[in-house]
Amino acid sequence: MSAGPEHMGPSIHSDSTPIPSSATGGTLGARLLQRLLSRLGNPPIEFLLDWSGERVAPQGIRPEQHVHISDRRTLRRLIANPQLNFGDAYSAGQVQVEGDLTKFMNLVYRVFAEVDVKSSIAQRLLAQWLHRPRRNTLAGSRDNIHRHYDLGNEFYALWLGDTMAYTCAYYPQAAASLEQAQTAKMDHVCRKLRIGPTDSVVEAGCGWGSLALHIASRFGAKVRAFNISKEQIEFARDRARQLGLQDRVEFVEDDYRGISGRYDVFVSVGMLEHVGRENYLRLGQLVRRSLTSQGRGLIHSIGRNRPAPLHPWIERRIFPGAYAPSISEMMQIFEPSNLSVLDIENIRLHYARTLRHWLERYERAVDQARTMFDETFVRMWRLYLAGSVAAFETGTLQLFQVVFTTRENNEIPLTREFMYPR
Amino acid sequence: MSAGPEHMGPSIHSDSTPIPSSATGGTLGARLLQRLLSRLGNPPIEFLLDWSGERVAPQGIRPEQHVHISDRRTLRRLIANPQLNFGDAYSAGQVQVEGDLTKFMNLVYRVFAEVDVKSSIAQRLLAQWLHRPRRNTLAGSRDNIHRHYDLGNEFYALWLGDTMAYTCAYYPQAAASLEQAQTAKMDHVCRKLRIGPTDSVVEAGCGWGSLALHIASRFGAKVRAFNISKEQIEFARDRARQLGLQDRVEFVEDDYRGISGRYDVFVSVGMLEHVGRENYLRLGQLVRRSLTSQGRGLIHSIGRNRPAPLHPWIERRIFPGAYAPSISEMMQIFEPSNLSVLDIENIRLHYARTLRHWLERYERAVDQARTMFDETFVRMWRLYLAGSVAAFETGTLQLFQVVFTTRENNEIPLTREFMYPR
Repeated sequence: MSAGPEHMGPSIHSDSTPIPSSATGGTLGARLLQRLLSRLGNPPIEFLLDWSGERVAPQGIRPEQHVHISDRRTLRRLIANPQLNFGDAYSAGQVQVEGDLTKFMNLVYRVFAEVDVKSSIAQRLLAQWLHRPRRNTLAGSRDNIHRHYDLGNEFYALWLGDTMAYTCAYYPQAAASLEQAQTAKMDHVCRKLRIGPTDSVVEAGCGWGSLALHIASRFGAKVRAFNISKEQIEFARDRARQLGLQDRVEFVEDDYRGISGRYDVFVSVGMLEHVGRENYLRLGQLVRRSLTSQGRGLIHSIGRNRPAPLHPWIERRIFPGAYAPSISEMMQIFEPSNLSVLDIENIRLHYARTLRHWLERYERAVDQARTMFDETFVRMWRLYLAGSVAAFETGTLQLFQVVFTTRENNEIPLTREFMYPR
Repeated sequence: MSAGPEHMGPSIHSDSTPIPSSATGGTLGARLLQRLLSRLGNPPIEFLLDWSGERVAPQGIRPEQHVHISDRRTLRRLIANPQLNFGDAYSAGQVQVEGDLTKFMNLVYRVFAEVDVKSSIAQRLLAQWLHRPRRNTLAGSRDNIHRHYDLGNEFYALWLGDTMAYTCAYYPQAAASLEQAQTAKMDHVCRKLRIGPTDSVVEAGCGWGSLALHIASRFGAKVRAFNISKEQIEFARDRARQLGLQDRVEFVEDDYRGISGRYDVFVSVGMLEHVGRENYLRLGQLVRRSLTSQGRGLIHSIGRNRPAPLHPWIERRIFPGAYAPSISEMMQIFEPSNLSVLDIENIRLHYARTLRHWLERYERAVDQARTMFDETFVRMWRLYLAGSVAAFETGTLQLFQVVFTTRENNEIPLTREFMYPR
């Protein structure tokens, strides 16, 4: 388990009497922090300025969360740009959160959701422009993907579980384990696509290959799976050989833009976040020309209720070039190519569960993570996982599975009952 | 049954040998028609010019459909604007279609879908601008709705069946009757919304009241249902009294923009087509402020794979002011108000079935329709129903059910299995 006051449980401050206001007294830093809290709607958070012993909290509210700031420079950076600099300061240990980090991040996301409600369309457009993600050219995508997915398969194996599936799982029951839920997700996707043994399937962005191997082994279809992460492709090819599936699944180390040929099924789980909105039109054209006339497809992606940039710290430190589209933005894939959307399911609460499972395993394996990376990285990754739980729990992020087919395909089951076999 | 060659079954022309081209010979009208057919990709349709005895058909193709044109003026109008003028000429009996009208309309829609594939974005935008629907101001909506829905309850009763539901039904099995499918649709909607006896429900655009009465009688909730069609509201109030539900269901003769108060559930089935895109943003704001914090809603609407005007003849003669949005356009309701879309189901093939049931009943009751309206109206209505079957069967139109909730609502079932009780 990690060190630091954030894992010491409820602190001695938690039960203290309401804190006197520091709005009129205190140092300049304390007063600016107070003002920031006021702008954010006075959330029940108390800040402890370790160098001066000052405490800053909204007036007349019993704080639910307690955050230590280690030095003046960190405070200045937090006040200047809390959204971007909180993550770096936390990673560096200059900010320490007492108690449950996920609970704290839930509060933070609720606070920013309220601020967002009050912001104007112009403010939102400005934020979107300021925080536009890195471009996903062919070379840019390779670099963006390498920076996240090539951290080492051993690191991911510490906390992803046996399937090595690094996307939202699907919990048929709340009590399902991570492995059960990842397998159920793959089954859910295959059922939605009605994959059978005579189908040819192309997968765009196959991660460590679990879905492609599942499609071949459980549903009998042939699969060509694309990925530009060298480490993931090598891992996937090894697994295919171990499972004797190398004749049924071909792993291609190439960008999705290299897909050619025609298939009965197009599937992409957790790649769209890295495609970039500027490429949606061409992705749709590629999907359309890759499908047979009765072809169908599924795109599974993190999304949003409405267009907004990814959290700037996440885009900078965790997922360079990434973007979570709203449904209207996702439709820029399908609409220009006249693809028929059959079904959209939002399973955001499943991603919150998945992330809680990942975070639990990460904390259990954190000492092994420390042998691979420095403490700043270890803390950064914890914040990323805990913050992501909160983002899905507060409805800041959504998870959309979109099923589609060609306009002319009438071979569509009348109801969706077939997705729910008993 | 109606008169005219379209109901005489296969004609003497159907088995004739390929028609010699009239591209180089023939009258000017025949040559222009030939050119039009060529521009449309040479569909297998033969035109018979009744005044001259000429036959016009694509070269070297055995025609599948045979269409009579009665006079030169009609031919000129068809060539000038086939999309708009075909419907009027058909209604007036100046165009007669041999054989199955629905089959013919399927061919026509497939032809125009292909033309659409080849048209540029600029051409599509131009078409959209030229065919923009009438505005739906408060007074405009009242007039637009009056023109369609106040044709007389007796007329609609001829072919809508007992439920008087004038929206897409839901066929749990292909063999379901119209009444079964309309009841199943109401159950499907109520299940998706998880309506229970303690819920308050507001319905925007309630037609003849069947859904509101169903919600109250089968699910026990209280309902306020809005409609601006005077005839429909009177019918609905009578039914409520007959069923003893007048204390549970309030029918309000008012525009949806008059909705006030807060409800657990917002539902609207088949009204969005009449709202007008210019009002989507405000509809979303109205929905948001009408919902409690755990509130949920469903909007059921005819839609499109991508933005396009309604068929110009339908918008002019049948549904003034109507528009069928694409999903990205529908999202302009939900996204600005930060509503979370949970589920979208496309049930277009159900609307094709529903319309086939309506058309069958319409033809059975056509002699009664003739006692209410003139032959032009009777033919117009047949074309509208048959053309609508074809529009849904060819994927020209879609039918979307969108389930949504507030951003902050986490009381969401993990899976959609509850929608499919057995």
